[in-house]
Amino acid sequence: MKDILLVLTKTKPHQLERIKQLAVDYDVLTVDEIDENDGERVKIIYGWNRSEDVLAFIKTCVNVSWVQATSAGVDYLPENIKNNADVFVTNVSGIHAIPISETVFAYILGTYRNLFYSAKVQANNVWDVPDPNSFHSLTGKTMLIFGAGNIGEEIARIAKAFRMHTMGVNTSGKDRAFFDQMYALDKSFSAIGQADFVINALPATELTNDLYDKPFFNAMKDSALFINIGRGQAVVEEALIHALEEDLIAGAYLDVFKKEPLPSDSPLWQTKNLLITPHFSGVVEHFRDEIFPIFEENLINFIEKKEPTKNIVRSERGY
Amino acid sequence: MKDILLVLTKTKPHQLERIKQLAVDYDVLTVDEIDENDGERVKIIYGWNRSEDVLAFIKTCVNVSWVQATSAGVDYLPENIKNNADVFVTNVSGIHAIPISETVFAYILGTYRNLFYSAKVQANNVWDVPDPNSFHSLTGKTMLIFGAGNIGEEIARIAKAFRMHTMGVNTSGKDRAFFDQMYALDKSFSAIGQADFVINALPATELTNDLYDKPFFNAMKDSALFINIGRGQAVVEEALIHALEEDLIAGAYLDVFKKEPLPSDSPLWQTKNLLITPHFSGVVEHFRDEIFPIFEENLINFIEKKEPTKNIVRSERGY
Repeated sequence: MKDILLVLTKTKPHQLERIKQLAVDYDVLTVDEIDENDGERVKIIYGWNRSEDVLAFIKTCVNVSWVQATSAGVDYLPENIKNNADVFVTNVSGIHAIPISETVFAYILGTYRNLFYSAKVQANNVWDVPDPNSFHSLTGKTMLIFGAGNIGEEIARIAKAFRMHTMGVNTSGKDRAFFDQMYALDKSFSAIGQADFVINALPATELTNDLYDKPFFNAMKDSALFINIGRGQAVVEEALIHALEEDLIAGAYLDVFKKEPLPSDSPLWQTKNLLITPHFSGVVEHFRDEIFPIFEENLINFIEKKEPTKNIVRSERGY
Repeated sequence: MKDILLVLTKTKPHQLERIKQLAVDYDVLTVDEIDENDGERVKIIYGWNRSEDVLAFIKTCVNVSWVQATSAGVDYLPENIKNNADVFVTNVSGIHAIPISETVFAYILGTYRNLFYSAKVQANNVWDVPDPNSFHSLTGKTMLIFGAGNIGEEIARIAKAFRMHTMGVNTSGKDRAFFDQMYALDKSFSAIGQADFVINALPATELTNDLYDKPFFNAMKDSALFINIGRGQAVVEEALIHALEEDLIAGAYLDVFKKEPLPSDSPLWQTKNLLITPHFSGVVEHFRDEIFPIFEENLINFIEKKEPTKNIVRSERGY
């Protein structure tokens, strides 16, 4: 009996053909083609599926060698896969950098140029000119980005094009492209008060839980904007609500939350100067086309050399 | 009796001091300090004022040699000034390029990343995820910009940073920085159907009246966005309304209109997929600081060489 390559993500017909071409020694099966007794034969999983049926089946897959996730974070994977030294986990980190960066600038520019305001009041049919002092330009402003990986770097690259000053934070404080200045996380507090924008692009690790708390928001300029497109657990939501309601900061944008979907009774929905989006900042325009080349390259290497090479998740860092 | 330098724009105290320092042979007077009999002594006007009193006074200023406007367009100046070969008119063209470009990208990104949608539905306290196919990225998209002066060039520069293809239109079709391709206005029709974004950044001249008409919108992609941050008279508003309501194009943003303020009974206010702002795309964050160096340089040259040198309006082209 052949090993199984289980395809759990939507895949275009020509992509499925290509997989079968490469993985000739495998049975390439989609979720509908699987038999519940096949679990032990599953060697490779492409994508994931959180339905109960599929999760129950995956529990029987005790011989998996490699999971190609179709997300950047993999905290949703079961322990016996993500913390198993015998299982490779690869992600698609990188493909979300561009859409997330574009979403960050959509928020910043929409706020600085009063377009959210105009979009809202247009329904009134009134020529409603905001106070000239409420218009700002990115030129010369300072952006502080926590997380200088793919996402942080793409945001910094665009910030430089807008003639901004860029400061970044990572574990080491080591230099990165497009950042004028880097700080180590444990030495970054002094940078907060210089920033017109603070952006969380850190992955979810224990180090970053509740990083953005009351002292943090107190240290920000009252004209500054806070943006979280990283992970929800990094923000103390009550502290952010307090900072916004008391005008300690000028505005915020959250795409991720401690609990998702954000419950309808959360006070965040109605917090002043806060924009909420339902964890969509990284949605990619042609998702299947973007992720497939990553899987394809890994598959070629897995077959030839028994291991994937691209975007291997280092589980000891939690991402 | 000294000639008068009449200051009609808001000027900071230290700027007024500097003017007096430079123009020692002039009486430097603000609008409150003028006597109604002083008209014939006015040689230089800095800024403009559309109140009836001031306009009546300006009619008596028959010896004006130079008007430094604090706008880019000067179509509001009276004929005896703007079409008088003995009067220099200078504008502040250039300072609006950055805020206008930022406003254009605020609209494009806000639309492509669904932030206007989320800002609107947030009031419902519902985790409302738009269709994944409604998310787009600027990468690889094509922008067609009519007008390749300061404003068009700044928009193209940012477009290149977002990895876009840029096409520009000017009178000659001559190459310009940050444009991958240039078209002469009379040969530009074939470019329209290639564009994901069409932007009007042309000044108001007779050539561009009603340039964006029914055949123009018909030639656009149905997925494309139209943006007017140039002049209102360039757009046939009925044709645009038709194109939007019939989904011939995907969306539009207008900052300028045939009649301003846009009357409250205009059907534009409630047109589908149209964002309206009250002619504010060029509002500069520190206006008085941005315009003063232009006036200062011109004043030095006017005093020394009897003519200003920066941003002289060529009246034969209408701007």
